Amino acid sequence: MTKRIKIYDSTLRDGAQAEGISFSVEDKIKIVKALDELGVSYIEAGNPGSNPKDLEFFERIKELELKSAKLTAFGSTRRRNINVEDDANVKSLLLAKTPVVAIFGKSWDFHVTDIINTTLEENLNMIKETMRFFKDNKKEVVFDAEHFFDGYKANKEYALKSLQAAVDGGADSLALCDTNGGCMPNEIYKITKVVTDKFNIPVGIHCHDDGGMAVANSIMAVTAGAVQVQGTYIGFGERCGNANLATIIGNLQIKQDYECISGDNLELLTEIARRVAEIANVSLDEKVPYVGRGAFTHKGGMHIDGVNKASKSFEHINPELVGNERRFLMSEVAGRSTILKKIQKIAPNMKKDSEETMLIMDRLKQLEHEGYQFEGAESTFELIIRKNLGKYKPFFELENFKIIGEKPNISDELSAYAMVKVNVDGNIKMTAAEGDGPVNALDKALREALEMFYPELKSVYLTDYKVRVLDTKEATAAKVRVLISSTDGVNEWTTVGVSTDIIDASLIALIDSIEVKLLRELEKKIKAYI
Amino acid sequence: MTKRIKIYDSTLRDGAQAEGISFSVEDKIKIVKALDELGVSYIEAGNPGSNPKDLEFFERIKELELKSAKLTAFGSTRRRNINVEDDANVKSLLLAKTPVVAIFGKSWDFHVTDIINTTLEENLNMIKETMRFFKDNKKEVVFDAEHFFDGYKANKEYALKSLQAAVDGGADSLALCDTNGGCMPNEIYKITKVVTDKFNIPVGIHCHDDGGMAVANSIMAVTAGAVQVQGTYIGFGERCGNANLATIIGNLQIKQDYECISGDNLELLTEIARRVAEIANVSLDEKVPYVGRGAFTHKGGMHIDGVNKASKSFEHINPELVGNERRFLMSEVAGRSTILKKIQKIAPNMKKDSEETMLIMDRLKQLEHEGYQFEGAESTFELIIRKNLGKYKPFFELENFKIIGEKPNISDELSAYAMVKVNVDGNIKMTAAEGDGPVNALDKALREALEMFYPELKSVYLTDYKVRVLDTKEATAAKVRVLISSTDGVNEWTTVGVSTDIIDASLIALIDSIEVKLLRELEKKIKAYI
Repeated sequence: MTKRIKIYDSTLRDGAQAEGISFSVEDKIKIVKALDELGVSYIEAGNPGSNPKDLEFFERIKELELKSAKLTAFGSTRRRNINVEDDANVKSLLLAKTPVVAIFGKSWDFHVTDIINTTLEENLNMIKETMRFFKDNKKEVVFDAEHFFDGYKANKEYALKSLQAAVDGGADSLALCDTNGGCMPNEIYKITKVVTDKFNIPVGIHCHDDGGMAVANSIMAVTAGAVQVQGTYIGFGERCGNANLATIIGNLQIKQDYECISGDNLELLTEIARRVAEIANVSLDEKVPYVGRGAFTHKGGMHIDGVNKASKSFEHINPELVGNERRFLMSEVAGRSTILKKIQKIAPNMKKDSEETMLIMDRLKQLEHEGYQFEGAESTFELIIRKNLGKYKPFFELENFKIIGEKPNISDELSAYAMVKVNVDGNIKMTAAEGDGPVNALDKALREALEMFYPELKSVYLTDYKVRVLDTKEATAAKVRVLISSTDGVNEWTTVGVSTDIIDASLIALIDSIEVKLLRELEKKIKAYI
Repeated sequence: MTKRIKIYDSTLRDGAQAEGISFSVEDKIKIVKALDELGVSYIEAGNPGSNPKDLEFFERIKELELKSAKLTAFGSTRRRNINVEDDANVKSLLLAKTPVVAIFGKSWDFHVTDIINTTLEENLNMIKETMRFFKDNKKEVVFDAEHFFDGYKANKEYALKSLQAAVDGGADSLALCDTNGGCMPNEIYKITKVVTDKFNIPVGIHCHDDGGMAVANSIMAVTAGAVQVQGTYIGFGERCGNANLATIIGNLQIKQDYECISGDNLELLTEIARRVAEIANVSLDEKVPYVGRGAFTHKGGMHIDGVNKASKSFEHINPELVGNERRFLMSEVAGRSTILKKIQKIAPNMKKDSEETMLIMDRLKQLEHEGYQFEGAESTFELIIRKNLGKYKPFFELENFKIIGEKPNISDELSAYAMVKVNVDGNIKMTAAEGDGPVNALDKALREALEMFYPELKSVYLTDYKVRVLDTKEATAAKVRVLISSTDGVNEWTTVGVSTDIIDASLIALIDSIEVKLLRELEKKIKAYI
């Protein structure tokens, strides 16, 4: 029988503890919408007492009606030796006006005596009274038992007493935290089992990845009876990160008989992961299970051949189940059949040993040798195939350009200009533009020149611009690979350029990016015509 | 009693299947040296039959004497329906002249019948005869049972028969592979236990991370009696990667009673990880357990306070055990005490509420708001503190500069020039230089001007140059953050610059980089003087 697991996301709270992550109020609202769309059960969104930005967020989020998730405010038990109703931090949690509050408290005796410097007895009172305070205020209350597993290993009786205090105070659920992230899967299983056997309220699990086992530890806890899984959607978190909920949802719902989110939403798994990464302004690790761009990417020739025969031969699940896709890489290890598949998308009649196929293979090898990598830039790859098949006519020629950057006085702003001359079917257009730096100036001048001939370019803008230094031994003189992602509001595509010069590399990618858009528009016209 | 586990590294073979990884022969030799220094037991280094580069590698590596590791060549069982001694791939493995060969064969009946298209009986013969061939040739033979777990779940008897065939052929050990990486920890435990109970030769485990559980699955197999752990040192591998051996060594040897490498070498764990990443030319994920730059990095104020009281309060192990270090981040979540610690390194008398401390905090907030991030650029951070403490006098002033880049004809190489004027204690020097792109030209002109005054700059060169686009919504007009790492052959330091212009941002980081070197030299002189 399918068992229901409640997914409890803390991207906006524990995830914000990660290095390099800083959410604006706007970002937080977008992430709430994304997670609610996916169908998680709880969204832990911050601590209104500790952070004015969080308070503003809770003010604004009230207007939003959520479909599946309950918004949760996070805070600590009351401080020692005061009345709970006199604790400003505790009271501030009510300001968030969320249906749920999560309260963390100490389960490890050492933390009670040595970190927050109080007595073991007072800590139990702090837990119980804080639970009761929020129950009296009609909240659903989650007790986060901080360091529960380390605490249990040090002093089993006391750790369990801390849970009992929460239950006595009226807690609705008990989340067991491996706060330092160092527990072994078997420990998590055994200790969670003790708790699920002993207490009659729902038990949750909250793991960190310091041993690289946060996902497995969460799964072991579920096996031991936990029904709430805390984590962050793509694993953001302090140190090595929190348990990755996208992976856990895949492991529980696809591989085992659990329901974490509505089944129809499984295919949103990948899209939401990428959206969250985008909002956080980090690149999603390609290797992330289920949702990473490389999670179903094959490079070895034998694996590629196997997957072509039967996908299950080298894939644990069908990537479409989670909205991801299979990719075959071009590389020295990959067989010709991979590249052939890409060629056949454009010219279905090409064979493995066609002369054109050989030509394209040679050209690719040469470009790879120069530092190109098409693994992330399928659009440039497509243009190369077309060019080599003769199925391509450039939409414009850039005839020349010049850029200038200067600070006549070092305290001035940098002035950057670009001049370009383009030729569209014999019509010459010269433009100049000023920009924030030479690449931007060049981008502007080029667009201005081309929009005269191709007004459809007005909708195109760049969404990402990445620079990778290829041979770090020579740093600023090294080759650089520039990846440019562009969108017209509907589609997104990525192109690549390599050069020893960042401006030249950017220009190559920029030109390809514009060519791709013009090619897509032409294809649309042709389709409409046929 | 401490139990010995043999670590079997496949960075050079399975790791090379990862997207973006491509090793030269030189790279491979360096990685062998690094892994041998760490003390792994086996280094699986490639397939001489499939790849001429691998053959060259095996030729050259023969000259190297290894301290701890046995070099291993990797290949397949003989093809169907031929004599083993007639199989070119099998014979080519002997050319590698390694003491060990690893042979993979099929354990999943579906793969036998549907992928390599032979009979179940013939597959068993292929395994047995290939084992015997290498035993006759005096090799230690590892049988890699491909898809063993999926095979066992589909047809238990046949999967076990494939192992029996290997044992009958004389295999020295049996490595059980979760090739598709989709198994659950409990499955791995139970199935491995069946094998270790049934066979009397050493059993190994080979996991992939498609379920995000490769490390935990490996640990579960060891708990079930496996004594050889296959993986890649920092997790490189196809799709989601292989089991990360650095993490596994930490989990087994620090947390449990196993010995994987000589205990003294544990503190090399981090250094070797970074070296391998450097050789592979990838940035090591900051979040990787034990060895990542962020594995012991604290951002939350409460966690920082806790760790300052007792490190075990928020750390699963002492980072020094593995040669890593604790870091505290500056950010809105971090408390003032973190920044104070950094200030006190320069001015030990500063207090939490000193006016200077407040000033620096304000300046940092302002810079963070502008897009600076000091998490990776401690050297720039140090300069800012010094500047605000008045403990700093610039070594030079850049008075003005101009850069030009042009292609008078689009088929020309880009010409890039820079002119700079510097002032060192009233002495003016103007230089011009040509470079591979404007940033490189600027770098050259600036160094040329300064080396006249500071010959110690001759030893400095840039080792890394990273560009991060901050607000991707505006792409080429967005702010960019440039990180520059420099070395003088002994020390390495990183500086950061932010601007809407990549040239300006590079220049800021470049100037700081030079200032840091000059500051260090001055400190040395002062020390020698005292």
